[in-house]
Amino acid sequence: MCSVMSSVKPVQRALALTLRLRTNTEASSYSAAQNRRVCPGVSAGEAPLKPFSRSYCSRMALHKGLLFRQLFETESSTYTYLLADTETKDAIIIDPVLETIDRDLKLIHQLGLNLKVAVNTHCHADHITSTGLMKKRLVGLKSAISKFSGASADIHLAEGDKITFGKHYLTAIETPGHTDGCMTLVSGDQSMAFTGDTLLIRGCGRTDFQQGCPKKLYNSVHQKIFTLPDQCLVYPAHDYLGQTASTVGEERKFNPRLTKSPEEFVNIMNNLNLKKPAKIDISVPANLVCGIHEV
Amino acid sequence: MCSVMSSVKPVQRALALTLRLRTNTEASSYSAAQNRRVCPGVSAGEAPLKPFSRSYCSRMALHKGLLFRQLFETESSTYTYLLADTETKDAIIIDPVLETIDRDLKLIHQLGLNLKVAVNTHCHADHITSTGLMKKRLVGLKSAISKFSGASADIHLAEGDKITFGKHYLTAIETPGHTDGCMTLVSGDQSMAFTGDTLLIRGCGRTDFQQGCPKKLYNSVHQKIFTLPDQCLVYPAHDYLGQTASTVGEERKFNPRLTKSPEEFVNIMNNLNLKKPAKIDISVPANLVCGIHEV
Repeated sequence: MCSVMSSVKPVQRALALTLRLRTNTEASSYSAAQNRRVCPGVSAGEAPLKPFSRSYCSRMALHKGLLFRQLFETESSTYTYLLADTETKDAIIIDPVLETIDRDLKLIHQLGLNLKVAVNTHCHADHITSTGLMKKRLVGLKSAISKFSGASADIHLAEGDKITFGKHYLTAIETPGHTDGCMTLVSGDQSMAFTGDTLLIRGCGRTDFQQGCPKKLYNSVHQKIFTLPDQCLVYPAHDYLGQTASTVGEERKFNPRLTKSPEEFVNIMNNLNLKKPAKIDISVPANLVCGIHEV
Repeated sequence: MCSVMSSVKPVQRALALTLRLRTNTEASSYSAAQNRRVCPGVSAGEAPLKPFSRSYCSRMALHKGLLFRQLFETESSTYTYLLADTETKDAIIIDPVLETIDRDLKLIHQLGLNLKVAVNTHCHADHITSTGLMKKRLVGLKSAISKFSGASADIHLAEGDKITFGKHYLTAIETPGHTDGCMTLVSGDQSMAFTGDTLLIRGCGRTDFQQGCPKKLYNSVHQKIFTLPDQCLVYPAHDYLGQTASTVGEERKFNPRLTKSPEEFVNIMNNLNLKKPAKIDISVPANLVCGIHEV
């Protein structure tokens, strides 16, 4: 057990685990999510999305040689992503969570993968990353995070940097706004974008702490994500409504916040009145050192 | 509001929704899931999975023209699947849940899909299907379920029946054991199998009610699912550990129950000592009539 986890246990952790409270206040408010849940269904007045020029789906791409797994951590509603080259078995993991480290390492072991890089899309406030502990368990594993995150890591990412695994790679794109160090990771063929808390499915990350700035987030999404192909799949760091993926085309058309004008967006974000994330005082200091002290 | 939901509300439903209790006792026990959570990680003695002859991943298949979405309902930990032909927009939905009908219909509307068939992999005991209510909201929608389920529906499926949407189809395979009317739905190219409660990720559905029979389930999995290609993705009706997909090859090698001998498997299943599902007395009668009376 790492020192951070030990210090957490008696207070927030026991409470959260016992009551299974949702602490999903980092990325978006639960009340906002619930509001979106009460939707007009098919009677909604929105026009349907036009067919894409290319067809798509979120399943096998037999010719691509890419293994892809989406994993969910229920307490913080965080998605962790595992990607690997099926030939070389080189793999990367995105946003792994301390609570699910055993599940994730067991899967990596069963699939016979060589985990090369554990990357965080940003310095999370709602959960502790497992990156540091994972490095202790897997020899040679490197941690990666934006150079603007303020966090220690083996690799400090900047705009355009590539994270390579076998013949595949993700390109790191700077998308500040939720925090200064937020990055979106885009697959080489622009078929997938791991948007962290910058862009959520029909939502976005909050902008009221950790250098948050709604204007920056708006520009990041419109200039760096909405310029990707319509059919590019959006894989966020969180979802609170059971949605697992979206597309750039869908979000550009249906995101209730980011379809607004910049001014309206700033006004919405400045008036969310969200509670402070339950774990922020523990998570941020821990995540600044890869989720564990003395890595 | 349908009559069944009205009658449910004052009792179990209010309790479940208020306390957000997990009622995941249909498919597998929560304690069993927790036990699997405490896993040895990379120090486990299991041999890694050998590389597949074909590579795979769970993402875009641009050339296939198939839209695929996995959706999650948190109260019963149920996965709902939406599949569509991106050209014709004809779509089907698998195992939709009453609580998330608005979310699902809104997505169907936004994507401009023509939902043709709502199919249940079996008569669920842990949640009420939204099939009946969905039929009321979408003109022309047909419900489908196994002819051995005992449930009313527009289409009664038997071995080998095809559910077609545009140029795509799923083949219905009878896989009894959890119930007599359990079916696995396999995509035309055998790249995806929707296994319902017959095969879960590293688990399987319980066999101690609703005509449950461990020997039947064992034979169904070994004869009908484990004979699919190794790289065929397994999409179950439930997961309680944040896992979204597996493969036939993985389950054949790592499923802790179904890798056992038939005798050991029967012994395990007959000694799970699970609690009765919280909603069974409401869900099963409702699901026998598409989740709603007077459809």
